[in-house]
Amino acid sequence: MRGAEATVLAYWAACEARDWDTFGGLLADDVVYDLPQTRELIQGRAANLQFNREYPGDWHVTVTRAVGDGRRAATWTAFTVDGTPVPATTFFDLDGSGRIARITEFWPEPYDPPVGREHLVQRY
Amino acid sequence: MRGAEATVLAYWAACEARDWDTFGGLLADDVVYDLPQTRELIQGRAANLQFNREYPGDWHVTVTRAVGDGRRAATWTAFTVDGTPVPATTFFDLDGSGRIARITEFWPEPYDPPVGREHLVQRY
Repeated sequence: MRGAEATVLAYWAACEARDWDTFGGLLADDVVYDLPQTRELIQGRAANLQFNREYPGDWHVTVTRAVGDGRRAATWTAFTVDGTPVPATTFFDLDGSGRIARITEFWPEPYDPPVGREHLVQRY
Repeated sequence: MRGAEATVLAYWAACEARDWDTFGGLLADDVVYDLPQTRELIQGRAANLQFNREYPGDWHVTVTRAVGDGRRAATWTAFTVDGTPVPATTFFDLDGSGRIARITEFWPEPYDPPVGREHLVQRY
């Protein structure tokens, strides 16, 4: 059984390669994909495979950071969707057999910096 | 030297307790706090202490998930700001002495679910 970090790196590599057999093999039968920002749940391996296979646009993903320990892992990924960079952050829970049982994913969007902290901040 | 997960749990506990001595002791002198959504950087321990001490509103933080390995860690935190729940996701890099050298933080906001995937999704 590979470690949690290796599992989530394999998950993203399979996504990018559209290698859905490998992707599906990393997921628990009853995997739950949770998107807290939209309050959406996608439940089960088949629905998750279909969601990813059908996801529209010319999207690509590379992993900026991955960290895993035991049955938990997190990644910060750099997606591009039709050429636009979009970061995502994802928290994974693995089951006892090392399959991904829960995926909680966030898609943070740009916003204007709050006023009043300019004295402490450099912009880039 | 404590592990990365323990360090970031101590970071959030010190934040919530407004224990700025402990908080400052967890940070490298040249710590960099990076907010990619607003493209803001806050550099150095003193500026980071001031930023957190002065942060407006009645804010509280609890850790939903933490994972650490070696010099890397990630957390998913549940903030409330004046009673409004606000999640954050944070990636930490520690230096060789176990202090926090880089903090990259995301503040994902709610958005409307994209159309066309209703057949795969349950809302909550």
